[in-house]
Amino acid sequence: MLEHYDDHPREACGVFGVYGHPEAARLAYYGLYALQHRGQESAGIVVSDGKRLKDRRAMGLVPDIFREEDLQALTGHMACGHVRYSTTGSSIQANVQPFIINYAGHSLCLGHNGNLTNAFDLRRRLEREGSIFQTTMDSEIVMHLLARNIHLGFEEGLIEALKELKGAYSFLFMTEDTLVAARDPNGFRPLCLGKLEDGYVVASETCALDLIDASFLRQVEPGEVVFIDKKGLRSIKPFKRVRHAHCIFEFIYFARPDSNIFGQNVYQVRKRQGAQLAKENEDIKADFVMPFPDSGVYAALGYAAASGLPFEMGMIRNHYVGRTFIQPSQDMRSFGVRVKLNPVKELIQGKRVVIVEDSIIRGTTTMARVKNIRAAGASEVHMLVSCPPHRFPCHYGIDFSTKGELIACDHRVEEIKNMLDLDTLRYLSIEGLLKSTKTTRDGFCLACFDGDYPVPIGEGAGKYCLER
Amino acid sequence: MLEHYDDHPREACGVFGVYGHPEAARLAYYGLYALQHRGQESAGIVVSDGKRLKDRRAMGLVPDIFREEDLQALTGHMACGHVRYSTTGSSIQANVQPFIINYAGHSLCLGHNGNLTNAFDLRRRLEREGSIFQTTMDSEIVMHLLARNIHLGFEEGLIEALKELKGAYSFLFMTEDTLVAARDPNGFRPLCLGKLEDGYVVASETCALDLIDASFLRQVEPGEVVFIDKKGLRSIKPFKRVRHAHCIFEFIYFARPDSNIFGQNVYQVRKRQGAQLAKENEDIKADFVMPFPDSGVYAALGYAAASGLPFEMGMIRNHYVGRTFIQPSQDMRSFGVRVKLNPVKELIQGKRVVIVEDSIIRGTTTMARVKNIRAAGASEVHMLVSCPPHRFPCHYGIDFSTKGELIACDHRVEEIKNMLDLDTLRYLSIEGLLKSTKTTRDGFCLACFDGDYPVPIGEGAGKYCLER
Amino acid sequence: MLEHYDDHPREACGVFGVYGHPEAARLAYYGLYALQHRGQESAGIVVSDGKRLKDRRAMGLVPDIFREEDLQALTGHMACGHVRYSTTGSSIQANVQPFIINYAGHSLCLGHNGNLTNAFDLRRRLEREGSIFQTTMDSEIVMHLLARNIHLGFEEGLIEALKELKGAYSFLFMTEDTLVAARDPNGFRPLCLGKLEDGYVVASETCALDLIDASFLRQVEPGEVVFIDKKGLRSIKPFKRVRHAHCIFEFIYFARPDSNIFGQNVYQVRKRQGAQLAKENEDIKADFVMPFPDSGVYAALGYAAASGLPFEMGMIRNHYVGRTFIQPSQDMRSFGVRVKLNPVKELIQGKRVVIVEDSIIRGTTTMARVKNIRAAGASEVHMLVSCPPHRFPCHYGIDFSTKGELIACDHRVEEIKNMLDLDTLRYLSIEGLLKSTKTTRDGFCLACFDGDYPVPIGEGAGKYCLER
Amino acid sequence: MLEHYDDHPREACGVFGVYGHPEAARLAYYGLYALQHRGQESAGIVVSDGKRLKDRRAMGLVPDIFREEDLQALTGHMACGHVRYSTTGSSIQANVQPFIINYAGHSLCLGHNGNLTNAFDLRRRLEREGSIFQTTMDSEIVMHLLARNIHLGFEEGLIEALKELKGAYSFLFMTEDTLVAARDPNGFRPLCLGKLEDGYVVASETCALDLIDASFLRQVEPGEVVFIDKKGLRSIKPFKRVRHAHCIFEFIYFARPDSNIFGQNVYQVRKRQGAQLAKENEDIKADFVMPFPDSGVYAALGYAAASGLPFEMGMIRNHYVGRTFIQPSQDMRSFGVRVKLNPVKELIQGKRVVIVEDSIIRGTTTMARVKNIRAAGASEVHMLVSCPPHRFPCHYGIDFSTKGELIACDHRVEEIKNMLDLDTLRYLSIEGLLKSTKTTRDGFCLACFDGDYPVPIGEGAGKYCLER
Repeated sequence: MLEHYDDHPREACGVFGVYGHPEAARLAYYGLYALQHRGQESAGIVVSDGKRLKDRRAMGLVPDIFREEDLQALTGHMACGHVRYSTTGSSIQANVQPFIINYAGHSLCLGHNGNLTNAFDLRRRLEREGSIFQTTMDSEIVMHLLARNIHLGFEEGLIEALKELKGAYSFLFMTEDTLVAARDPNGFRPLCLGKLEDGYVVASETCALDLIDASFLRQVEPGEVVFIDKKGLRSIKPFKRVRHAHCIFEFIYFARPDSNIFGQNVYQVRKRQGAQLAKENEDIKADFVMPFPDSGVYAALGYAAASGLPFEMGMIRNHYVGRTFIQPSQDMRSFGVRVKLNPVKELIQGKRVVIVEDSIIRGTTTMARVKNIRAAGASEVHMLVSCPPHRFPCHYGIDFSTKGELIACDHRVEEIKNMLDLDTLRYLSIEGLLKSTKTTRDGFCLACFDGDYPVPIGEGAGKYCLER
Repeated sequence: MLEHYDDHPREACGVFGVYGHPEAARLAYYGLYALQHRGQESAGIVVSDGKRLKDRRAMGLVPDIFREEDLQALTGHMACGHVRYSTTGSSIQANVQPFIINYAGHSLCLGHNGNLTNAFDLRRRLEREGSIFQTTMDSEIVMHLLARNIHLGFEEGLIEALKELKGAYSFLFMTEDTLVAARDPNGFRPLCLGKLEDGYVVASETCALDLIDASFLRQVEPGEVVFIDKKGLRSIKPFKRVRHAHCIFEFIYFARPDSNIFGQNVYQVRKRQGAQLAKENEDIKADFVMPFPDSGVYAALGYAAASGLPFEMGMIRNHYVGRTFIQPSQDMRSFGVRVKLNPVKELIQGKRVVIVEDSIIRGTTTMARVKNIRAAGASEVHMLVSCPPHRFPCHYGIDFSTKGELIACDHRVEEIKNMLDLDTLRYLSIEGLLKSTKTTRDGFCLACFDGDYPVPIGEGAGKYCLER
Repeated sequence: MLEHYDDHPREACGVFGVYGHPEAARLAYYGLYALQHRGQESAGIVVSDGKRLKDRRAMGLVPDIFREEDLQALTGHMACGHVRYSTTGSSIQANVQPFIINYAGHSLCLGHNGNLTNAFDLRRRLEREGSIFQTTMDSEIVMHLLARNIHLGFEEGLIEALKELKGAYSFLFMTEDTLVAARDPNGFRPLCLGKLEDGYVVASETCALDLIDASFLRQVEPGEVVFIDKKGLRSIKPFKRVRHAHCIFEFIYFARPDSNIFGQNVYQVRKRQGAQLAKENEDIKADFVMPFPDSGVYAALGYAAASGLPFEMGMIRNHYVGRTFIQPSQDMRSFGVRVKLNPVKELIQGKRVVIVEDSIIRGTTTMARVKNIRAAGASEVHMLVSCPPHRFPCHYGIDFSTKGELIACDHRVEEIKNMLDLDTLRYLSIEGLLKSTKTTRDGFCLACFDGDYPVPIGEGAGKYCLER
Repeated sequence: MLEHYDDHPREACGVFGVYGHPEAARLAYYGLYALQHRGQESAGIVVSDGKRLKDRRAMGLVPDIFREEDLQALTGHMACGHVRYSTTGSSIQANVQPFIINYAGHSLCLGHNGNLTNAFDLRRRLEREGSIFQTTMDSEIVMHLLARNIHLGFEEGLIEALKELKGAYSFLFMTEDTLVAARDPNGFRPLCLGKLEDGYVVASETCALDLIDASFLRQVEPGEVVFIDKKGLRSIKPFKRVRHAHCIFEFIYFARPDSNIFGQNVYQVRKRQGAQLAKENEDIKADFVMPFPDSGVYAALGYAAASGLPFEMGMIRNHYVGRTFIQPSQDMRSFGVRVKLNPVKELIQGKRVVIVEDSIIRGTTTMARVKNIRAAGASEVHMLVSCPPHRFPCHYGIDFSTKGELIACDHRVEEIKNMLDLDTLRYLSIEGLLKSTKTTRDGFCLACFDGDYPVPIGEGAGKYCLER
């Protein structure tokens, strides 16, 4: 749950929908605000008053995009919102979601969290048949598939379109009068269902329900398609059952600690990861444990409690760092680090420090931070990581999709320890990680750690596969 | 050639293309600047360096949209530019032209001046077949027709697409390596071809050639499709010949007086209209003749020379009026007029004044101006209009498309005279108008005067027919 | 009355005040709009509701600075407005007028048209005594002089401050409850007084009265100070009488033709200048006469009527040229000309042309325009200028204040004719000019023609004398 | 160190100066970035290249005000920077600091942290003598005092001016060639001196030195005036010695924990405050202790370590909350709280919770947060505050200057406990607070707790005393 200037991977997207509330746009605004950590590149809200869609979508953060007058103009009892960090499709205005089409007198919008693995093949086929695409997003494909099947009616046509898709998706569709939530059969990304007075809410994480005082009903299940309209809620499960493949990295890093996803509270899973780290590394002796705020905080708390070491916040955040910031020179990453976090020298000087980190992706930011800790006078620096080494790219919606970006892909742990100038570097074991989630390997996608991809990867599945 | 705050009709669009010049974007900028009077709502330039299209398109005037750094970023030897006032399609960002599509790895852009009369039917058919439209512009239809025919190759596919269109169009297409100019068989709108060093220029009017020192080659002929690429210029005439139907209102009002269109100089045609007015109205006695700047200036000069009356500029323009301006009250039109033009009382006081106007569309602005002339003390006010009364909407690209907007549609000349508080109101005869163009009725579309539409009008041909 | 991209001199400023109207700010907005030709660099409106001053001031044109909500926020029955092109003081935000000071619990604002000739000496003295200046404008000096005399009371203190000033000024002051207009004893710049319902209006030119339907009362007289408050209007003449020195260039170029200044209508004075030109140059033979719009239009009309030559508008203005515009190259002036005015080749080709210009200052724009006329095929080009050659800088508020900017300063008429590539170049005689104003030499300042300065020039009187 | 949307008091200002570095503006940018928590309303940087001052100042946050091109334009080896939250003077553009004057051919700028207690008297005297003030800031007064004494030379004149001031100030002055730091004799606000290569740095807190890798030299001492120019550093102590009166609230809340001020590290002082709280409240029984991030974090860590209770981060911050945010309704404060911090229900449910807060000023935010903790299911909520109750306004530069804003002013602790719906509310004792700073009462200003003001308060010393 770090800000986006970090070297952590960036989440694909967050979705938020509401049906049956007179201030649907305002709720969507707060919902997206709560989901901002899932996408900082662009955001959009589409509303319907039952007859016509209206939208506001732009590059930027939610509070920067929407003003009071925007919300007032977005009248209607239904809304579909989206925050985005691009997975497929480059960062351009046209790719802002929710994506809207006007089709034979009707309008339809779509918000997507995830990544389709057969996007390239599908688009090639559709273009050969005369379809003109407006964006480079894989999400657009489902709209064209629907347009080709619309003669079956909207519901039937949508099911047919979904059947052609492979990969990860938590979708929100909205027509003039119907809100639809759909989750891929493997259930890669979270999606939950809530109740607010007489209406319904759909959101990527439960923290969005909390903010608007909606109550949590249940998850949208893997392979479930939920239609919500004036007749109420209707669930369809059109796909054949497959094993679940929840993204375990949501627990480790992405989801907010106050959210419950895949049936568990994230804060507590992270504390258990820290406790597990303590159990697996009892040999380490130190004066205190600290996180790099805010990444490893919760695992560090679990580690401190289990190990009995004092917990300190030895690096101080500058609270204004989320904003654009002029870089001093070529050496920008290291300075970027100093601007964000300043060590408390009086605390660290001469001490043996354990740092608990949630993950190491490229390693560049970590390297600079360890250097700062050393410069502040630490006598020993031990790092414990609350997940196994990242060795494989993700094709289901997380942005570390080429191997070149993963330090553990080319380097053994010993090498990484030396590159980062650490006295100790230990990762959590896969078994320990699973234990902290209290589930078995079957329910999760661990592909980024072990390369075992639950859904095969199609041709040209890289991030920009739909651009030339 | 009035500014757009007036009650004159507004032209649909202007197009400008260049092939074979290292600073194509800059030339397009100047070309669009010279054509700004044809569309003040939005503008765009698309360039190609032979491999990739780049664009900048926005709402607003040409000098407000493009900055030096924009032109520098638009590198390439080919450019396609467009200024727009919406004919079909409402005034929204998505409808800004040139319109770009990416299609199976290729890009294509389109600028359109005119209006298709079978747009509604074509779009309904394409949507039924699964096409998804991005805009409400009739111009998009040709792109989808082309996509469905692209298996024939670009050139053949384009010709097939054009064959399905009915109505008025001066088109500019641009692919990565080819510039195409196409004009409908009736030749409703002007389109000319120029030469600049080793390259070619295509523009709606010759004034755009003048500004960049290009030499005039010839008109793109009605029904002609011109392909320009590295092999040079290639002309195709795929349509069967029909009678020409040049828009006579281009001569009366739209085109700039320094342009040559349809084979003649606009300034001189307008002076002949004024001279013809003098011949048809020898009975009028007055102290001097004046125009309302800048509309009737050239016809007024022709009238003054032919009648022997002194020519005066009795209303003074505020030079800063083109800009947005805060209105004083409900009575905004009348005040808008006073802000723009202030009468010189010392000149008008006690005088018999002849005013030569180019046209009266809704009549509201004229009414307010005459009131100002009266208030300045004129003893008599006679108005001569350099065209016949506008009684019929235009379906070929001019924005007075409903009858309700035309004062002469519901009122006889005597009534209009009284409404405008004039001592005399006379219109130029159709025969006099044709005489001033030195051509016969066959070559021109006079539909706005006599209702004789050269091309039949399809279902839902109004301005917003493609919106719901 | 040309736009500011031209090589004509630029006027210093325009002022507009209103007392006793509930929508004072809105009236000031329209008043400044009408006076925009007197200053395009910045504008401001200050209002008072009797208790507190509120203001909006910014760089830019009047319609770009003020929005509806700005006018609504400027509540009060008194307003003081200003448009500015800098005479002294560089073009920076802080120098925007009306200039406001807060003084011992009171507020005071000032708008100034003119130029003080003893500014440098006065400021040096005040700074030596501990005054801190906020701007580089000569206008600020009077505020400090007032502050040092305020123990005498506002009215007496103001009179004492004014007595120390030398040079040209048409001032508007406004306190919380009083509007003051003051004109220097020589009366260099125009200033007029109008009546609107129960209130009063003060403006640089009468065209500002016309726009808001105020009636013209009289000029503020040279050396008069007018106080307007709830008790009505009170006139004081505290200075000893000196000869009048109205700026004759206001008639030739600056003032709008629909204004009456110094007791005469500008349009008619300009026509008489043209008629006088015809009388002084009967030997010239030509096919027609034309102005460069819009500078010489009215003198050209007078010339045409007196000489019997046909009047044409042979160069067509681009109506969108007032805006910022990207220059093509180093050769920008010549191109700037082509963008603004395009000759009608069909009219000019093979003809002998007389051009009537109002003035030639630097000559660069004129040179480029003549070149364009030649390129359009004119066989002979004769130029008649409706004033004598400008040989001396102005120190009373007009921006051609160094000799280096005046082509006639270093070159004889014969040389200028050759530089401009003319067949004939003739200027109006000083006697002819005075005849056209129907007054004698005594009432006018002709210093820019004959170097006879009515008020002596102090040390460092150049434009930036108050900057380092 | 909370963001500004909170109900905590807001610091007056931060200053940062540098002498002798080629990229002085860039260093100032980073320095102000590190000091952003001391003022979020406006910021400015003034530079000098030894000859001329250049500046950029605006409303907003440091990273929003300055762009790369701004820094590049601010060339020079000296810089004076300022971040501001208004203490005296309202939040308007003109009041942005550093404040600049141009005086008799010289320029001088000033940045001020603190508040003068005799501002009203001094300004009244100066205005009576003819001075015109540009702003409503007390800081401007010293400039006018200097202008009146400048005949003594700059150094002597400045000393004379400073001698007239009463109250709190940490000043930075900069002329074209000299940087001056001055601290009031009581030393209310911090100010430190650092070394960077051959140059000097002055800053409100040491965290600004850390960021640019400058080394800490020493504090600027109370009553010291430091001149830095090409001859080096020169210290003068022109005032007679008085007791020190360091603001103890800097330790409790304002200063960043990684800064050292008044000779001690802030992080460690805060941990000792928490430990002291544990010692004074051994009777409280609970399941865990938590702060409201980020206010009480460090005291809570000290409390947890001393008491042996587990430390948790039971409320999760939304990382994007620093930005403007649309409020849902009248009940905005409570919702503002929910947007910022969301409790982790799974953690809190059924637990006895100790919350450590750094201070309670108005109490409104605290009330809303406690309500959220209760709603999350806490069985008991005990609050410990790491300072005594705030009962008196501050007149030395902190913005809770009227009694009405202080909840402890009108209410006893028992009442506050009930208003906040707490099971226990305890404040740190004054003796405990002093113990945590390891100093005696003599060195600190404790006026906000005990009303004992070290410097008498003059007439009209409220925040807007210099406005009408």
